[in-house]
Amino acid sequence: MSRLTGNVEMAHGGGGRAMVGLIRNIFARHFANPLLAQGHDATAIAVPAGRIAVTTDAHVVSPLFFAGGDIGSLAVHGTVNDLAMAGARPLALTAAYIIEEGFPLADLDRIAASMGAAARAAGVPIATGDTKVVERGKGDGVFITTSGIGLIPDGVDIGPHRLAGGMAVLISGPIGDHGIAILSQRQGLDFGTTIQSDSAALCHMVADIVAAVPGIALLRDPTRGGLSATLNELAEAGRIGMMLDERAIPVRPEVAAACELLGLDPLHIANEGKLVCICAPQDADTLLAIMHRHPEGQGAAKIGETTAQNPGFIRMITAIGGTRVIDWLSGEQLPRIC
Amino acid sequence: MSRLTGNVEMAHGGGGRAMVGLIRNIFARHFANPLLAQGHDATAIAVPAGRIAVTTDAHVVSPLFFAGGDIGSLAVHGTVNDLAMAGARPLALTAAYIIEEGFPLADLDRIAASMGAAARAAGVPIATGDTKVVERGKGDGVFITTSGIGLIPDGVDIGPHRLAGGMAVLISGPIGDHGIAILSQRQGLDFGTTIQSDSAALCHMVADIVAAVPGIALLRDPTRGGLSATLNELAEAGRIGMMLDERAIPVRPEVAAACELLGLDPLHIANEGKLVCICAPQDADTLLAIMHRHPEGQGAAKIGETTAQNPGFIRMITAIGGTRVIDWLSGEQLPRIC
Repeated sequence: MSRLTGNVEMAHGGGGRAMVGLIRNIFARHFANPLLAQGHDATAIAVPAGRIAVTTDAHVVSPLFFAGGDIGSLAVHGTVNDLAMAGARPLALTAAYIIEEGFPLADLDRIAASMGAAARAAGVPIATGDTKVVERGKGDGVFITTSGIGLIPDGVDIGPHRLAGGMAVLISGPIGDHGIAILSQRQGLDFGTTIQSDSAALCHMVADIVAAVPGIALLRDPTRGGLSATLNELAEAGRIGMMLDERAIPVRPEVAAACELLGLDPLHIANEGKLVCICAPQDADTLLAIMHRHPEGQGAAKIGETTAQNPGFIRMITAIGGTRVIDWLSGEQLPRIC
Repeated sequence: MSRLTGNVEMAHGGGGRAMVGLIRNIFARHFANPLLAQGHDATAIAVPAGRIAVTTDAHVVSPLFFAGGDIGSLAVHGTVNDLAMAGARPLALTAAYIIEEGFPLADLDRIAASMGAAARAAGVPIATGDTKVVERGKGDGVFITTSGIGLIPDGVDIGPHRLAGGMAVLISGPIGDHGIAILSQRQGLDFGTTIQSDSAALCHMVADIVAAVPGIALLRDPTRGGLSATLNELAEAGRIGMMLDERAIPVRPEVAAACELLGLDPLHIANEGKLVCICAPQDADTLLAIMHRHPEGQGAAKIGETTAQNPGFIRMITAIGGTRVIDWLSGEQLPRIC
């Protein structure tokens, strides 16, 4: 299409014909679904009585395109996964774009195509959206905020209030892929092999987890701040401790090598397609078997247990047999990874 | 609080302790409500069976603080109003911040305070949020994307598909206030008096409208692109024409004077606290009386009628008795007004 050779102009955010054209030619084309076709500022969705999960995420990842995904697929996965971590089946997403003047329409089209494909794969329609344009130098290509609503199945009650000592702590696969993929691309680092982001929608795997163990205590995706921030937050909110086994925590050799080279700890690196699952010890094997059946859960493993002692603290038996406390970073190790 | 004398740093968006501190000290304090207190990535909300309205809006207004509001109150009003235009009672909002490194914490606090106050006035909790920080020069102070969900009452079915010829077209008050308030402040123009934005939540007025006339055909807020873009969009989507009466369209004298000075047409200027209502002719007086009872509807007036002829076209009998076609702008008259 000839329109896709140009760039985004201020007029594309003005509410006039240029904006309507942009929406029709790019977003409506890639997101086509009956909810979006309602064409109203708010989209109506029929729901049964129950509990709705709502969530939102602003995505400012840099670079916009990376090995294993782009800001469009990431924006879908991030929000779908936040819904999934409440045990919810995603019902609909919304997408709001803040685009910098001069951004290539071809890149916007590529991002929208990837976003549409990710939404279809997750089985969730993008129901409505918004487009704003800011002057050159007042943004950075494109930022995408996605929000989502999902339906929480009856009987599912996931949250830190469910945590207690003696539970099993599982992770759905190797950690650190997303953060290292972004960092290596941003810095032009070559580790001999391209490390791919793990960005993926976890909703199908979570549907199976929740169906098998409706009483599951906790699911959480270890994104910004990595596994250490996620576990520390949970330990604090749930007033429990945890004891991890370093040798059980899956890390790909190339990610471990990159971390060693860069002086980073994989425990602090963001993931975009992994989940932490905390469950009754007798459910651990069932849940690991379910995860292993999904491509997103191939490397799932039990990495430790919760403890009633030392509430608020994450301890880890290291590979050489010592014990250390895993704190979260006060600041930020890798900015703009999501 | 001493923390509020500093500036936002990259670490505030990193997912670690700095971010948790920012959320606790600013957002949680001003938004305090039981939904937000759940503290999970997704918030659970109980809903009855029915239809949910979902909507999203990215806010990039410049300047951030303006006469009659700021980006915080605007972000609440914009999304509450999009829900209201579906006839929905707002249930919950989400708020995602993209903050430029170096933004004063005191300004962020002021914006969050205004946002909390606007949400309380509208009767809707801010249920969850997200905070991202981008490097200096990659953003512009703060952008806020709000999304909302609301409950559409049974029997309410608002949309362009309900439009037909012979209906009354109402506006809830004088047009152009928001756009001219922003523009005059941005340009440092002095029109002798400060023109205030009309930014306001319309949900209370809409609740009364929908209760009185559940079969109301159409509500729409004439924001970006102004009244002309809104009516043209409706005429196209609803395959109807409209005939307006220029003398009946309320415009404050100071806004009219500013528009004349700047060569702008108030029909193209954005509003943030007005609605267009299209209804059966026999309901017009009832609805005008309801609007007049609300501060947001003080200047409500009937401004024209829909026609079965000339579908897709808005015509207007001018003040001097001629007829002209009201087109929408192709581009953008005033960038970044919302």
